[in-house]
Amino acid sequence: MASLRGTQQPELSKKLYKIIKTENHVIGAHEAAARERVGVARQLSEWGEATEDETISEVSDKLGVLMAEIAEQEDLYAQALEDYRGVLKQIRNTESSVQPSRDHKAKISDEIAKLKYKEPQSTKIVQLEQELVRAEAQSLVAEAQLTNITRQKFKEAYDHHFAATIERAEKQIILAKHARRLLNLVDDTPVVPGDLHPPFAGTEEARQVLNDAEDDLRNYELHVEPIHSNSGNLGVGAMPGAPTGGIGAAPVQDTTQYRDNVGTVEDGRYAESSVQGTDAGSQPPYPVSEAERLEQQQATEQITQPQPTAFQHVA
Amino acid sequence: MASLRGTQQPELSKKLYKIIKTENHVIGAHEAAARERVGVARQLSEWGEATEDETISEVSDKLGVLMAEIAEQEDLYAQALEDYRGVLKQIRNTESSVQPSRDHKAKISDEIAKLKYKEPQSTKIVQLEQELVRAEAQSLVAEAQLTNITRQKFKEAYDHHFAATIERAEKQIILAKHARRLLNLVDDTPVVPGDLHPPFAGTEEARQVLNDAEDDLRNYELHVEPIHSNSGNLGVGAMPGAPTGGIGAAPVQDTTQYRDNVGTVEDGRYAESSVQGTDAGSQPPYPVSEAERLEQQQATEQITQPQPTAFQHVA
Repeated sequence: MASLRGTQQPELSKKLYKIIKTENHVIGAHEAAARERVGVARQLSEWGEATEDETISEVSDKLGVLMAEIAEQEDLYAQALEDYRGVLKQIRNTESSVQPSRDHKAKISDEIAKLKYKEPQSTKIVQLEQELVRAEAQSLVAEAQLTNITRQKFKEAYDHHFAATIERAEKQIILAKHARRLLNLVDDTPVVPGDLHPPFAGTEEARQVLNDAEDDLRNYELHVEPIHSNSGNLGVGAMPGAPTGGIGAAPVQDTTQYRDNVGTVEDGRYAESSVQGTDAGSQPPYPVSEAERLEQQQATEQITQPQPTAFQHVA
Repeated sequence: MASLRGTQQPELSKKLYKIIKTENHVIGAHEAAARERVGVARQLSEWGEATEDETISEVSDKLGVLMAEIAEQEDLYAQALEDYRGVLKQIRNTESSVQPSRDHKAKISDEIAKLKYKEPQSTKIVQLEQELVRAEAQSLVAEAQLTNITRQKFKEAYDHHFAATIERAEKQIILAKHARRLLNLVDDTPVVPGDLHPPFAGTEEARQVLNDAEDDLRNYELHVEPIHSNSGNLGVGAMPGAPTGGIGAAPVQDTTQYRDNVGTVEDGRYAESSVQGTDAGSQPPYPVSEAERLEQQQATEQITQPQPTAFQHVA
């Protein structure tokens, strides 16, 4: 398993390895955008104060609050991408674990061909042919596991991915619309030299804008078309399991568990080490008692509740 | 004017200079996110092909197309931020140009105070006091220009900024929702060893998803609450101008010209050099014949039409 952490990936998992790596750069870029955006928000408030114009000072300070919250949503988006990236790793681990059984089968076939050419009477040929039958059986299992895991996790990964895109977008729209309300509190009627703008009359309304934004964000719920899955009875060893719902139970389930997963992410980064080995997808096509134990453990971990989204920047 | 390009900013424009600098980092981060996201889109399509699973191959290829378009929207957002940044520079340039008149007034006051202490009978005092009256008049004009330009351009800048936030979000929601439709074309019913998934039946539907996404994006229009402005008659020299609409014309105008500006941005980057000196905001409080010429030139440039948004990645 040591090669999984290095750059030497089995041929089968090289392409997904690249995606996982590039996605890490995407995440870093969104994190940087969030970090710098918070900087602009703070600097905007400081600039407004320094103008000694009460109107600009009040409005820029409140704009800064909303802008910092937009940055917070950008950062949560990056965290959700990290979660999706964890699901891609489950496919990659399965790909890596299937490679040896392909190699093993090919190696035995090669040996048989060589022996038949060099020592056609060798008794070892019969022995190798028996071994090949076993290797082919093992390989059939491995390939079925690969396609089962790939399809299930592919849907799950991009379900999360695009749900996160929609959630970031919808929340940032809420915040940007309230920010635009603040701008209309600035009276930009030009003054002649020596005249002053009238005193700022929008203090109460500006405060109300922040309250409204906070309320809207607190009441926000993600509504997306569910992604349907038939993999619900995918059992231990990534093989079709027994129907769990009894007669008449619909086999189609929605895999959209995005909110639960966001909750898990908020508790800490989806560490690579916690993914490897804890999922049925990374199990080799061998007896499954250990896999059973781990799958049960994973099911327990998924009960973790999501954290409610809170508008933290309003004093 | 050489100091405007260096790190030595006049005290008055230091804080805005910082915002403009940090905003450049934000823009760079969103550009990087867009670039890397395009990379993931391409790698996703390549991975899908390599799985030799027709379903995964078709769906991942189409997902890649939508993902590349999401990246394109991220990049357009970065360009729109560049545009908003150009408006901030107009405020900064005005701040920089007002600094000398503040300094000049303070210097004369100082000289008078010193002379009155050292040589109370000096005839130079009368001369300096006359100069101070002129400096105060100039300073009053400069401060009026500063507040007029600041309020007008502040509203304009953040009008653009938050309109761009909303536009990126709404377009990415469109694309992400269509991407989720594609996921439902993947049948993830588990297979037993030796069995194959049925052939992919969603080719036509997958193509339709891309067509729908393209149509939705083509028909997209940004609808935001307009930002109202009373600065419509802000004339040459950043002073209140004569009403242009005649009797009964409403003075309130909407400054929301976001779409026009996006069009300008698409023609090329909002270069710093093109901002400096072409706006009334950066004019010193002196005779305005040159300013008049430049303002007219700028008005002509703004006629540039926006480019229609096209869904370029669909073959």
